[in-house]
Amino acid sequence: MGDTKMPEDNVIYIGTKPMMSYVMAVVTQINSGSDEVVIKARGRAIARAVDTAEVTRAKFVPGMEVKDIKIGTEQISGDEGYKANVSSIEITLVTKA
Amino acid sequence: MGDTKMPEDNVIYIGTKPMMSYVMAVVTQINSGSDEVVIKARGRAIARAVDTAEVTRAKFVPGMEVKDIKIGTEQISGDEGYKANVSSIEITLVTKA
Repeated sequence: MGDTKMPEDNVIYIGTKPMMSYVMAVVTQINSGSDEVVIKARGRAIARAVDTAEVTRAKFVPGMEVKDIKIGTEQISGDEGYKANVSSIEITLVTKA
Repeated sequence: MGDTKMPEDNVIYIGTKPMMSYVMAVVTQINSGSDEVVIKARGRAIARAVDTAEVTRAKFVPGMEVKDIKIGTEQISGDEGYKANVSSIEITLVTKA
């Protein structure tokens, strides 16, 4: 049980950094022994999430494949009770056995 | 055979127009009798494709669900032999029977 990993450990959140930062985060995750990585993004970062998955797969972890892709809508709250809906994506990548 | 539809008829390509233009295109497609619509986008339009799918589903066609999502990489050629890779997404939406 000691080495049981919480699923949340495998999640990479895509923000506004250059795409290669996230590619490196995914590669590091895989090199540390994970066989599954989940890439999550919201709003305009969604395109960068897809780039991250594609570049990782094509250039850095050739055996990697897309296990699942989910899209959804999240509500974000800003200052003074402002609320908005934002689309989200969740890409699950796995390394082949 | 007369009313056989080519699959390509159901494809909505997401470009740089406001998202609602594409939502309307999907709704029109459904109202004309299609039970399946494929939303395709490349590069930065990917986020708008996800928005289109989510808004259509949440506000305009409540019975609609995501059947499949694929991501990929396409090579685009510009002037003077310039080539670049661009990520793509393909979201297949279906109306429940």
